[in-house]
Amino acid sequence: MAKITPRTLSGFMELLPSQQLQFERMKDALRETYASYGFTPLDTPVIESAEVLLAKGGGETEKQIYRFSKGDNDLALRFDLTVPLAKYVAAHYAELSFPFRRFQIGKVYRGERAQRGRFREFYQADIDIIGDGKLDITNEAEIPAIIYDTFTRLGVSRFQIRVNNRKLLNGFYAMNGMSEKAGEIMRTVDKLDKIGAEKVRQLLIDEVKMLPCKAENVMDFMAICGTNDEVLASLERYRGMDATFDEGLEELKAVVKYLGAFGVPETNFAVDLTIARGLDYYTGTVYETLMLDHPEIGSVCSGGRYDNLAEYYTDRSLPGVGISIGLTRFFYVLSEQGLLSAEAGGAACDALVLPMTEDLSAAIASAAALRRKGLRVQLYTEKKKFKAKMNYADRLGVPYVIFLGEDEIAEGVLSVKDMRSGEQKKLSPDEAAALLLSDAQRRGNVKLICE
Amino acid sequence: MAKITPRTLSGFMELLPSQQLQFERMKDALRETYASYGFTPLDTPVIESAEVLLAKGGGETEKQIYRFSKGDNDLALRFDLTVPLAKYVAAHYAELSFPFRRFQIGKVYRGERAQRGRFREFYQADIDIIGDGKLDITNEAEIPAIIYDTFTRLGVSRFQIRVNNRKLLNGFYAMNGMSEKAGEIMRTVDKLDKIGAEKVRQLLIDEVKMLPCKAENVMDFMAICGTNDEVLASLERYRGMDATFDEGLEELKAVVKYLGAFGVPETNFAVDLTIARGLDYYTGTVYETLMLDHPEIGSVCSGGRYDNLAEYYTDRSLPGVGISIGLTRFFYVLSEQGLLSAEAGGAACDALVLPMTEDLSAAIASAAALRRKGLRVQLYTEKKKFKAKMNYADRLGVPYVIFLGEDEIAEGVLSVKDMRSGEQKKLSPDEAAALLLSDAQRRGNVKLICE
Repeated sequence: MAKITPRTLSGFMELLPSQQLQFERMKDALRETYASYGFTPLDTPVIESAEVLLAKGGGETEKQIYRFSKGDNDLALRFDLTVPLAKYVAAHYAELSFPFRRFQIGKVYRGERAQRGRFREFYQADIDIIGDGKLDITNEAEIPAIIYDTFTRLGVSRFQIRVNNRKLLNGFYAMNGMSEKAGEIMRTVDKLDKIGAEKVRQLLIDEVKMLPCKAENVMDFMAICGTNDEVLASLERYRGMDATFDEGLEELKAVVKYLGAFGVPETNFAVDLTIARGLDYYTGTVYETLMLDHPEIGSVCSGGRYDNLAEYYTDRSLPGVGISIGLTRFFYVLSEQGLLSAEAGGAACDALVLPMTEDLSAAIASAAALRRKGLRVQLYTEKKKFKAKMNYADRLGVPYVIFLGEDEIAEGVLSVKDMRSGEQKKLSPDEAAALLLSDAQRRGNVKLICE
Repeated sequence: MAKITPRTLSGFMELLPSQQLQFERMKDALRETYASYGFTPLDTPVIESAEVLLAKGGGETEKQIYRFSKGDNDLALRFDLTVPLAKYVAAHYAELSFPFRRFQIGKVYRGERAQRGRFREFYQADIDIIGDGKLDITNEAEIPAIIYDTFTRLGVSRFQIRVNNRKLLNGFYAMNGMSEKAGEIMRTVDKLDKIGAEKVRQLLIDEVKMLPCKAENVMDFMAICGTNDEVLASLERYRGMDATFDEGLEELKAVVKYLGAFGVPETNFAVDLTIARGLDYYTGTVYETLMLDHPEIGSVCSGGRYDNLAEYYTDRSLPGVGISIGLTRFFYVLSEQGLLSAEAGGAACDALVLPMTEDLSAAIASAAALRRKGLRVQLYTEKKKFKAKMNYADRLGVPYVIFLGEDEIAEGVLSVKDMRSGEQKKLSPDEAAALLLSDAQRRGNVKLICE
């Protein structure tokens, strides 16, 4: 029979078992963190009506979308988790309680040009808090705490959550009579990290056609830095000139004020006036998260406050705040850079039971007993030479192998071999379970990301 | 602005939060059970090359498939998890260790005619054990134990795993010179439950054109029943007439022999000679699982032993055994019949913290402290009347509300209200955490399915 080559499409991540275990660890860490803040899990269809999904229309997204017909239906695969959320909230409005807090970790699809590290199918992990008409600023203050917990749980300590407020920016541009050029200015300022202050100033004058004194004002504003308190103090000098600015300043102060109570150390947080994000979407606090030792990755968790989640579906005002992690790309980069702990992924089981007798009843019963204690136990019963069996255990990376021969059965013990140290000892079933459980717990506490 | 109606496509399940929490419980129960047997999680792309996905070609499946082009690529959405597994194992053969044990819980797509309880996007939960050239019979004996643990963990006790062996059937048909009609006979016998023995006998004679004596042989064979030991004893009378039959009998005896060691009670297991399953695919042990009080649902977990997982992709012999649960339909039916515990889904958080002071620092810090103890805690900070806040807590279904006013802060306590009993008491933070944790644990132990 002619064979078809078993290939996976380019741009689609497919992991080997040990990597998949690491990826699951990452998803579990996010799920647990989001759940700890009372977010409810959501799972919307991958396929939606194209009309619904593309209600906003236009832009780069529409070109990248997977769109097709089935019967009379014009269908499309979701390209993010925000549009499905907007649809969900608008459709189920009467059945939801607000603020509605949901997390969703799911695959989204974009037919981008395939290149290394770019994915056409990738996981996004989103949380959003949606208000009905209003949403208190405390929700915006809570987001850095969630980001902090997320990355701490993953094992990162050298990261910084950078926060700004769009009202501050819009107010600043308004008080300087630059509102019309605000978009252009922000896009230019966004290059600060890459090309430096002098070149940005020149671009503002040459390309954005600003008067040198106005460009100077922008550069002065963007140069404000220091501790959070110092930055907030510096901003006070602009107070009273624009109502939107003042509102933004109050919001930023509220966000900073509660950081300590939320448990976010100042070292992991900075007010950064150069951050703008999604120019036509966010309206209040905006967030970016940088891994300090790997700035080349860019922001690994971003988001912000928006005013109208579902304006294409409903007249209701549904303001919200949310953040998103591009999980597949994040995982890919961490893996490429060797930052993932091998032990945190580890084996799919805590022990491999190798029966050494013809009758397998005792081995089967021992494995079942260990499972009842909460252990993950695999039974190996293929008829192979001893060396092949040990090779299998090695390749699986199991921490322990348990031998059960006539002697062990007669004595009522298990021979437990630690595959890392090579040490082997006879233990009672209870002793063996205790050893395995304590090691499983230790491995469970190993952080996924090693810095 | 003209609005687009926010609709979800028909045949696509989209759950409200409380239902979604139940569905997550179901997925978690499966994940934990499969992991306890050392199965490794796998996650393959939803989109595959149509050529790869349809390598087998033909049949009903091809008509139902979602197939489309993007650029030059002829693409399709997976319609099961078996074909992607075959592709995966063939593609990554050199990097895997055999037996390769994987579980996958993922969405698959079939453009079936939309009707109540039929889904176009649905979850399948599959486990498979793949051997390299050979696979020991003990793997087939382990499957009933996994099914038993799965349904027990979900809360079902009134279920029966029904097992047969295709070699027994094929051998029986061969010894009676009916091999050519085997397919037709099995399809007819499959109607036993629905139309009864007499009508099946008549169909075998009238439609399948069997001699009455041959039909009688079939009916006698299918009528074999009793305890497992009685059925096995009755089958002995056919021994020695066909090598395949004898092999099947030995395999069936091996599967039954180890049930006790695996911890499967005889009440949850029956040898049933009328079961055949997937006529052209399975070659050894086959499984069905019936909920005894809800036979109308049909088999909720089925599968069997097959000889060639990946014959369309490789010449290697990759025998395996696997089972599958159609999770979305199973969930739908359980939900429709009111068999899901409301408490097992429950709220997305263990407590809602309601600050009663202007400054929120104390409330935020209290919530953070409870989270560090492992609790899921939501902070409610919207500026609403007390009654609206309590309504919100009610609608979320949170088990506890924690009030924190000036008095509580001064006394260093939390006012904890049990929303079910209405009882409210002042507790130290540690006492409150202990109470909430013990209740969370109790709720965690509530089974999802109530019989």
